[in-house]
Amino acid sequence: MFIKRTDLALEARELWQESAEKTTRLSGVKAAKTKLEGYPLTRVDILDRRGEEALGKPKGSYLTIDLTTFWQRKADFFERAVRAVGSQLKELLPAEGPALVIGLGNAAMTPDAVGPLAVDSILVTRHLIAAMPRQFAGFRPVAVFRTGVLGTTGVESAEAVRGLVAEVRPALVIAVDALASRRVGRVCATVQLSDTGIIPGSGVGNHRAALNRETLGVPVFAVGIPTVVDAATLAADLLEESGITEVDGQRLRHGKQELMVTPRDIDQQVRDLAKVVGYGINWALQDLEIEEMNALLS
Amino acid sequence: MFIKRTDLALEARELWQESAEKTTRLSGVKAAKTKLEGYPLTRVDILDRRGEEALGKPKGSYLTIDLTTFWQRKADFFERAVRAVGSQLKELLPAEGPALVIGLGNAAMTPDAVGPLAVDSILVTRHLIAAMPRQFAGFRPVAVFRTGVLGTTGVESAEAVRGLVAEVRPALVIAVDALASRRVGRVCATVQLSDTGIIPGSGVGNHRAALNRETLGVPVFAVGIPTVVDAATLAADLLEESGITEVDGQRLRHGKQELMVTPRDIDQQVRDLAKVVGYGINWALQDLEIEEMNALLS
Amino acid sequence: MFIKRTDLALEARELWQESAEKTTRLSGVKAAKTKLEGYPLTRVDILDRRGEEALGKPKGSYLTIDLTTFWQRKADFFERAVRAVGSQLKELLPAEGPALVIGLGNAAMTPDAVGPLAVDSILVTRHLIAAMPRQFAGFRPVAVFRTGVLGTTGVESAEAVRGLVAEVRPALVIAVDALASRRVGRVCATVQLSDTGIIPGSGVGNHRAALNRETLGVPVFAVGIPTVVDAATLAADLLEESGITEVDGQRLRHGKQELMVTPRDIDQQVRDLAKVVGYGINWALQDLEIEEMNALLS
Amino acid sequence: MFIKRTDLALEARELWQESAEKTTRLSGVKAAKTKLEGYPLTRVDILDRRGEEALGKPKGSYLTIDLTTFWQRKADFFERAVRAVGSQLKELLPAEGPALVIGLGNAAMTPDAVGPLAVDSILVTRHLIAAMPRQFAGFRPVAVFRTGVLGTTGVESAEAVRGLVAEVRPALVIAVDALASRRVGRVCATVQLSDTGIIPGSGVGNHRAALNRETLGVPVFAVGIPTVVDAATLAADLLEESGITEVDGQRLRHGKQELMVTPRDIDQQVRDLAKVVGYGINWALQDLEIEEMNALLS
Repeated sequence: MFIKRTDLALEARELWQESAEKTTRLSGVKAAKTKLEGYPLTRVDILDRRGEEALGKPKGSYLTIDLTTFWQRKADFFERAVRAVGSQLKELLPAEGPALVIGLGNAAMTPDAVGPLAVDSILVTRHLIAAMPRQFAGFRPVAVFRTGVLGTTGVESAEAVRGLVAEVRPALVIAVDALASRRVGRVCATVQLSDTGIIPGSGVGNHRAALNRETLGVPVFAVGIPTVVDAATLAADLLEESGITEVDGQRLRHGKQELMVTPRDIDQQVRDLAKVVGYGINWALQDLEIEEMNALLS
Repeated sequence: MFIKRTDLALEARELWQESAEKTTRLSGVKAAKTKLEGYPLTRVDILDRRGEEALGKPKGSYLTIDLTTFWQRKADFFERAVRAVGSQLKELLPAEGPALVIGLGNAAMTPDAVGPLAVDSILVTRHLIAAMPRQFAGFRPVAVFRTGVLGTTGVESAEAVRGLVAEVRPALVIAVDALASRRVGRVCATVQLSDTGIIPGSGVGNHRAALNRETLGVPVFAVGIPTVVDAATLAADLLEESGITEVDGQRLRHGKQELMVTPRDIDQQVRDLAKVVGYGINWALQDLEIEEMNALLS
Repeated sequence: MFIKRTDLALEARELWQESAEKTTRLSGVKAAKTKLEGYPLTRVDILDRRGEEALGKPKGSYLTIDLTTFWQRKADFFERAVRAVGSQLKELLPAEGPALVIGLGNAAMTPDAVGPLAVDSILVTRHLIAAMPRQFAGFRPVAVFRTGVLGTTGVESAEAVRGLVAEVRPALVIAVDALASRRVGRVCATVQLSDTGIIPGSGVGNHRAALNRETLGVPVFAVGIPTVVDAATLAADLLEESGITEVDGQRLRHGKQELMVTPRDIDQQVRDLAKVVGYGINWALQDLEIEEMNALLS
Repeated sequence: MFIKRTDLALEARELWQESAEKTTRLSGVKAAKTKLEGYPLTRVDILDRRGEEALGKPKGSYLTIDLTTFWQRKADFFERAVRAVGSQLKELLPAEGPALVIGLGNAAMTPDAVGPLAVDSILVTRHLIAAMPRQFAGFRPVAVFRTGVLGTTGVESAEAVRGLVAEVRPALVIAVDALASRRVGRVCATVQLSDTGIIPGSGVGNHRAALNRETLGVPVFAVGIPTVVDAATLAADLLEESGITEVDGQRLRHGKQELMVTPRDIDQQVRDLAKVVGYGINWALQDLEIEEMNALLS
């Protein structure tokens, strides 16, 4: 069977509903739609083993903020997006304790650079609090780590993060990564938050060891932005829409060469959304206005 | 009618042959295949107006070196590729006079970074020859220019290059750019050389003013590497192979959002091929061994 | 005689006053001190040939804003610095016409990277106004150019800029560069504005062809930030303070190796001040609040 | 008392010999000079507690290769430098076992970028050996880590490395860093190897927790290149040469602002020497010719 690739719980649910079994009721999964700061928000909760099996994702909450209108750049689009991401993330996170923010992915390759770019906008405070505890009393300790990629480090991201967690002893880990979406319209137009951890490199198709509570010993929250569509998934959708349902997945995968579909002007889009994510994380972790982040990160 | 997008003369010829008129003979175009340093070489010559109209490209010579086997990394694969590119380019170029090498495209976006990356491997000698004419007597004067992209400069590449040509007064311009191929198999596996100039940004779908003898007043040679396939072209090919010939181009283009298909691990491939191109240009312009280039560019 | 090196008119005047001739009156030079947005401002006007000879700088106005207190990061330090730089620059500039902003220097070398970094914060509008004249009616056309350095381009900055000016036809050029100061205390704590053009690379000791009205045909305004002190100048000052006035300049210059003195933590300082300069130029050219620049440059 | 700053054992010995106690014999320290691949080599062995106290450095071997003539770029200068560094390092290292190579310092600041730049030339093999043990049977497992700097990570380099060592379990660590020299002539003209570990950031004056066998549990070898001279040390030497021995250290240190002296054209020099170090480490760890490294790192 040809497996359509997506990292969004929202789309996993869509795929389930499109499948032959759609006559059955999808049990173990709860979904709800609302709006936040002018942006549509979908919450999918996977409640139990049946939900996990149906959607192929671990139990937990998945929040998807639809930033399609972000690109119309209407009033306060940036601030609203930051507050939307920040307030939802804040609800997921433990209220206290030091945080470690991980930028997964390859800074040198735009569709995979969301993680390292977001980390550039994180307010790093751990060392300041250690050195000047009184002056920085109002801040939560935050450290960051850019894992780089296996090919240039020789070390799995999960290994490196586990080593760092053992030293830094954070109360929580937030991991930022690029994702794969099934739909072109969601690329660079969606942020997914979850409390389930993450498998690095999903977005660019190199599945690696997971970062989650089991592997790291602390809760792991994931912030992901879809930047690519798997070319074979897109083609299969296209053929199905044209009435061809017998899709030869092997041929769509073009042998071993993995292909991805991405917008031509992805560069600026990834940069802008990485800043939304970085500021959103600051919003969730620190008691700061966006203006103050601008000043501190200038 | 849906237009399939390609920057390769080789593929323009293929598309013509696949079209309804394939019963007719393609006049005004000459093609020949051979091998060079172990790599297949196709030469397409567009001879006259009829050839120009059939293939949609200006009159001149188009040499395509097939580097598919480069990635098997067999004996001397790099040196052989450099010599293949360099020797073919040398045949196209005037034997003497100063050269200006232009790196077109966006250094910050991998599939568009071939130009600026290739320029990093060019031996820049113009200022050295001016300062120490005796010591550098054996070298041909070479200057380089990275145009950047319109969005970050406000200036069209062609404008900026024309201004520079008026000052530097080269005998020839070599422009390096990323291209679009029609076939996934040719992405990061092909180098196209031509003596016809270039329209910057073809590869990433932003057509700009041409760089050619008409606009610059000196002969312009192009070196291009396909790094992307237009998503709609790929989809149309796929649908046709599945027996659907009535393709709705509008839908394939997904509204205004331009999409491209690119290999997931494009980063290293672009870097390696940009070096082949840079060294190939050095080979064509200077009387140097690859070893000597390594030492001078270390 | 040992020549103390400085690019600041302010310091050239100090050096003149310290010299043996200080009994004479310095004619042809006018100086005045005031305060602007909380930052001290010194204006030196070189009025005629005598002033030019005394200070070794061309006739014109030199405004030096002392940003020492910027680093205390008190209320609105960034906004006040932008307004101080912007409003003074605005007074120097023609009120209308397209502008070309040049980032001189080496982006890869921190003390020389002020120019390219400042250009990253410039609002580039020329192409937008050309494409959408109605939507961007309220903006002044601005293009930018990063010259790179001779060693990696083979082309003098002045040549490349002259070529670009002939194409872009701006009403004015603003050139941003790193400077050399005589005093450690002024490094990364001063901005000098002038209406006299600039000689690129002064700050790092590689004197090049000038960018000014004579060479470019349009008025050239310079914005400079001292990032280094010439090591020999610093040593000579130090020896003089210790009572040694017979300084052997040859020995201080350590043969041919040029040395510079720079703060250890120069990286962030250069980045912050380059943003002040970029925003200050936007302030002088466009009718925008700092908040609006943040949004447009996000 | 004013302390002259150096990270070179060679210079620590010089300073001791210049000091008032030079009448005493320096016990606990052994020194020897020789030549290697055309480059002068000095070996200083600190043998015991007395040697440690006299030179202010831990017990162990310090090898200094003088690369002054490297810059004359005579026959095989690069290869000879690689072999000189590589063969000396090989003698210090355990003959077997996986290695972890650490690039200390700030990639964004040239004089501090030796570590991250050297790591770019390291052959990373650990993941390849794990994935394809037969094909890579001839290689020694090597992983690398770029620590970044405290201000942008919030984590001390030593903490992060300790965490990684616990996961990767290398048999040895090699740490590459920029150093401070006392003499301008040694800047970018010297490589120091030692088997004693390293205190990161010495070169740029930010002393941090040590990387050594005590803190990491495995032997730590250091490779350092002086890229700066402490400005106050240079000034003190200069004043002493001028006959002024009562140096007011407080004034030389210019209050809190730390200054460094560095060559104006440091950018290329640091790049070239980082490559020598990277290749030298490959030479010590793998059984490869320089040509083969070029091919594998292309």
